[in-house]
Amino acid sequence: MTTTSFTEADSATLVIERLAQCVGPLPAFLAALVRHVHQAVRETRPTQADWRRAIEFLTEVGHASDDKRQEWVLLSDLLGVSALVEEINTRRPKGATPNTVRGPFYRADAPRLASGADISLDGIGEPLVVSARVTDLDGQPVAGARVETWQANAQGFYENQQPDLQPEFNLRGVFTTDAGGGFSYRTVRPGGYAVPCDGPVGGMLHAIGYPLRRPAHLHFIITAPGFETISTHVYDGQDPHLAEDALFGVKQELVGSFRPDDGTAKGGRWSLDFTFVMVRARKERKSA
Amino acid sequence: MTTTSFTEADSATLVIERLAQCVGPLPAFLAALVRHVHQAVRETRPTQADWRRAIEFLTEVGHASDDKRQEWVLLSDLLGVSALVEEINTRRPKGATPNTVRGPFYRADAPRLASGADISLDGIGEPLVVSARVTDLDGQPVAGARVETWQANAQGFYENQQPDLQPEFNLRGVFTTDAGGGFSYRTVRPGGYAVPCDGPVGGMLHAIGYPLRRPAHLHFIITAPGFETISTHVYDGQDPHLAEDALFGVKQELVGSFRPDDGTAKGGRWSLDFTFVMVRARKERKSA
Repeated sequence: MTTTSFTEADSATLVIERLAQCVGPLPAFLAALVRHVHQAVRETRPTQADWRRAIEFLTEVGHASDDKRQEWVLLSDLLGVSALVEEINTRRPKGATPNTVRGPFYRADAPRLASGADISLDGIGEPLVVSARVTDLDGQPVAGARVETWQANAQGFYENQQPDLQPEFNLRGVFTTDAGGGFSYRTVRPGGYAVPCDGPVGGMLHAIGYPLRRPAHLHFIITAPGFETISTHVYDGQDPHLAEDALFGVKQELVGSFRPDDGTAKGGRWSLDFTFVMVRARKERKSA
Repeated sequence: MTTTSFTEADSATLVIERLAQCVGPLPAFLAALVRHVHQAVRETRPTQADWRRAIEFLTEVGHASDDKRQEWVLLSDLLGVSALVEEINTRRPKGATPNTVRGPFYRADAPRLASGADISLDGIGEPLVVSARVTDLDGQPVAGARVETWQANAQGFYENQQPDLQPEFNLRGVFTTDAGGGFSYRTVRPGGYAVPCDGPVGGMLHAIGYPLRRPAHLHFIITAPGFETISTHVYDGQDPHLAEDALFGVKQELVGSFRPDDGTAKGGRWSLDFTFVMVRARKERKSA
């Protein structure tokens, strides 16, 4: 008579043996997860009551997720898993602009604007002029690239978080690079903010004192035929929370310098110069 | 300027450093999970689209869970995590009856019955007489123990799965052991069954061909003052799926022998003799 003889030591092995007989690509992924979750349980030795509470938490995370709010994405973001998946899939040569997690406030329908336009529709905040270039790894301009940008206002809120307080599409726009790879626009300097902690994920992490700050930043998605799409942040190098970004997006290449235009910083006009470096799409890189 | 310099190699370390500054017992548990989930991601290298599908699946698991149905418990059960948590928390000396996962069909309000009662209220199935004893590790009887039992019917359904087809409390009862530690009752031989695959968890595992059979079994919870509560199964040793129990509960000590009472098996009357061995509660074990 064969029995499974499930023991603490071989628990994962038994599950993985069953998965090994299954079909498709999913079983290998599940097997790795099973091995690691069983190992984590063996290391932390939760009581049955602990495990029930964990199950209750996971259930709450699901219940709090809907079309407008994705608590699972938030959990994945705040524990660095989203950043790791992004990193694994978009590893780039030195000198290229790295990708970061896109975050939940992107809108695909922002208006196309002419270079030089002002995306601050309410004019609230310290004026900022962004002057940027898009090049390839050799420093050659990438003309005709599509540049989407979005950002929080000076108080750290996106327009789709405050539909009653900000004009629609405030601080969003789509630009196109010129023959020299350049684009520029006017805006206001963004504020940093804390990840909301009114859901189960933020609530749990806030309760244990986990850092939930996001240093001030601008978002960019840059697409051009033949190049890998850049989806990234440019951070305010003066933000005091730069070392503890809740989404693990800060990298040296993405830290911008917001310079006072008139010599006096306070309430004055700021400027940011930045260069984005694109790499050829993978297929072209291989055949090159 | 300090940046987090998030890379594939040190991603978990960065998250764990943040958790190390947090308070309470939760951060250590989260740190172990983070380390193992990051490692599983590094090993399996999901694309961003793969990860989105994983998030969608986890969201569905939460949405499918409510007061009556707990898909998270089902996922934990089917991947052996529940059995591992049970194993870690109820490891017992050789000779003692081991615990198993309780499963979702328990009801706390089953009727108290006199020894010898018939718990089959509809009389459908092959009659079975269960004659059992409860002893301590030295073989001494445990008198006055409370024995709760529940089981599926011959078709493999519990009464709370079929409220319109089975009488309420069919195949459930609560007994008390006599001075010799014995109890007995009449019932019908249970049928094996497959875990339902109409939810996201069963559906996903069924699609890849993961075994979802539960070999035929009886459930027991046995409580007595001064002893650890036994919460376990007794399995039908003739069930062809004994080696692939979906809940990883089968152990040699829990396999029963269903013997024909009249020499001819078919449609006849069956009997099961079984001894449950209790161990002193941990506090008493330590001071002994």
